[in-house]
Amino acid sequence: SDAYSLLILPGDGIGPEVMTEVVKVIDWFQANRGMSFDVSHDLVGGSAYDVHGVPLADETMAKAQAVDAVLLGAVGGPKYDNLDFSVKPERGLLRLRKEMDLFANLRPAQCFDALADFSSLKRDVVAGLDILIVRELTSGIYFGEPRGIHDDDNNPDNEGGRVGINTQRYTSGEIRRVARSAFELARRRGNRVCSMEKANVMESGILWREEVQWVHDNEYPDVELSHMYADNGAMQLVRRPQQFDVIVTDNLFGDILSDAAAMLTGSLGMLPSASLGAPMANGRPKALYEPVHGSAPDIAGQGKANPIACILSFAMALRYSFDQGDAAAELERAVEQVLADGVRTPDLMGAEGGTPVSTAEMGDKIIAAL
Amino acid sequence: SDAYSLLILPGDGIGPEVMTEVVKVIDWFQANRGMSFDVSHDLVGGSAYDVHGVPLADETMAKAQAVDAVLLGAVGGPKYDNLDFSVKPERGLLRLRKEMDLFANLRPAQCFDALADFSSLKRDVVAGLDILIVRELTSGIYFGEPRGIHDDDNNPDNEGGRVGINTQRYTSGEIRRVARSAFELARRRGNRVCSMEKANVMESGILWREEVQWVHDNEYPDVELSHMYADNGAMQLVRRPQQFDVIVTDNLFGDILSDAAAMLTGSLGMLPSASLGAPMANGRPKALYEPVHGSAPDIAGQGKANPIACILSFAMALRYSFDQGDAAAELERAVEQVLADGVRTPDLMGAEGGTPVSTAEMGDKIIAAL
Ligand SMILES: CC(C)[C@H](C(=O)O)[C@@H](O)C(=O)O
Ligand SMILES: CC(C)[C@H](C(=O)O)[C@@H](O)C(=O)O
Repeated sequence: SDAYSLLILPGDGIGPEVMTEVVKVIDWFQANRGMSFDVSHDLVGGSAYDVHGVPLADETMAKAQAVDAVLLGAVGGPKYDNLDFSVKPERGLLRLRKEMDLFANLRPAQCFDALADFSSLKRDVVAGLDILIVRELTSGIYFGEPRGIHDDDNNPDNEGGRVGINTQRYTSGEIRRVARSAFELARRRGNRVCSMEKANVMESGILWREEVQWVHDNEYPDVELSHMYADNGAMQLVRRPQQFDVIVTDNLFGDILSDAAAMLTGSLGMLPSASLGAPMANGRPKALYEPVHGSAPDIAGQGKANPIACILSFAMALRYSFDQGDAAAELERAVEQVLADGVRTPDLMGAEGGTPVSTAEMGDKIIAAL
Repeated sequence: SDAYSLLILPGDGIGPEVMTEVVKVIDWFQANRGMSFDVSHDLVGGSAYDVHGVPLADETMAKAQAVDAVLLGAVGGPKYDNLDFSVKPERGLLRLRKEMDLFANLRPAQCFDALADFSSLKRDVVAGLDILIVRELTSGIYFGEPRGIHDDDNNPDNEGGRVGINTQRYTSGEIRRVARSAFELARRRGNRVCSMEKANVMESGILWREEVQWVHDNEYPDVELSHMYADNGAMQLVRRPQQFDVIVTDNLFGDILSDAAAMLTGSLGMLPSASLGAPMANGRPKALYEPVHGSAPDIAGQGKANPIACILSFAMALRYSFDQGDAAAELERAVEQVLADGVRTPDLMGAEGGTPVSTAEMGDKIIAAL
């Protein structure tokens, strides 16, 4: 069929609320832009655990493999904090990433002009900020073996008697493919890539640096490439974030650095992400889109959540899964319009005031702006 | 003897220049406060490699083991960038940390009032900031085995054919001892500890969380303990750093998070650190003190370096190695005085101006303020 197939996994906490607004946006594009979406819904995270006893059922996994794109809300909440590691809500998300082989996680850190004063950083340090972190998402210490907690039997010096192990493991192929994603994306932006690791301390960081350099020299010599130690990267992100265009880094550094970068913008409730894998038979990449914010259980169900990050994640789906760059830009402009008009969910309500709206009203305003 | 023994390892780049100013301060305390220091000097990092072919000679290691405290400047520089991993300048520093078993790395992130405007963060977010990061320094992925880069022989899917491995490994005993350091320090400050890991993703993080909690419940129930995922920690450090008192975290997270925290203060050239191990026979802990800033090869030898971080590292030595808290506070007040007087090395020279001084002049002014 010509329809774009979507699997919606609202998840936990504010996930369902913000996803409701995305569905309105999807409907608008169907009604007004001649697109056709084939949408199904399913469970992930704690809400899947409640029903299936696992945070992602096998049938849901199979559906995710079959669709063009997965839209995910958020997972986790205090109710599930004491579950066994293997069935925690996060494992549902990690299983999707791993089995769909979504190796390139795109996390734009963009500062919206109308919101620059929300940042804890000075306006001139963050105004206009537009960097893209490309995080490796299917390997490294998140998935490496051996891993686990064991008794440390033959070690009388170990008070407590246990040992916890995780393994950082990267193959050259895993590094090369995410490096290619970063270089490709850089070509469509500022044409600069900064790669971050700890090659001064970790051999896996040396391999990272060498393979990124190899891809550059052999395939993308036109893109400007630099290397930075990840600790200095964290510093530079705080000091002068505008020096960066595209940052490429591993799974764990990417987790930390992209969250720091997100917070710089002051717009956490605004930031989308895309996780992309290899092209499928129809040419579209395996893909999952999700807001960067979490499940925010403290405000769940109260109509206070900001749906923009989730809506902008759908804009990324339009761009990266369906090659609908114009439609994506149209949606992004509508969001900017609404912000410029002073429409504000509680998280965006600052000293200068504005028109307070609920989650649903924010969605409606964006539809109206479209 | 009653003398305090010190080994000075100036290292590379600006290390020697800033250490020269520390020596002036040591001399002042000898002349005016009835202390006696037995000072020897040696090489570390690239400057050791140039002479010995290794970044830390065995005799230097032996001397470090024998003294009360090691004062280190900085290591590294472009001249050494292409050396083999095993003889890079950093390995000298890592050998000192490991063989002296300096498991608790104290990194205060303090915002000096006179310099609050230097931060890229808003003044009200950082003014008065005073947090202490306690980083585990002798274990984790920095030292875990297996490690290395290997051929990935039986894997035709691995374009490039290599694999890079590092191992995160923590024993309960390693976690407990650094947790105790953090709780002890918290009792002398705000009495709050926040522990950071990725227990949602890494089993070593689960062990970390459980052991820190165990030490709390059994030995420091009076101290307030919270746990935070390290990615959220990075966010919160940017968003509202003043929420923290003491942060305790592992070697790698500590590397990244303490650098981010240091940069928040806008006073990178001002920040000291202490790395402490177990008590020696004389009751003093094994100890190494060093500024947080690096070797800054771009400005080395030009009299531009700020010696304050290195001088404040000596103040930490007075406090933690020699129990001379009053003398340490006296030195810290002298530094604050000089800053309040507008005395500025180039890195501190901002819009409001001030009296420009060289590295040596800054040292002299601090002596004068003493
Ligand atoms: C929820 C958690 C497993 C996840 C991660 O660590 O990758 C989250 O922090 C993220 O960045 O998407
Ligand atoms: C120089 C390097 C080995 C070191 C580290 O990674 O620990 C440095 O970044 C630090 O934080 O002291």
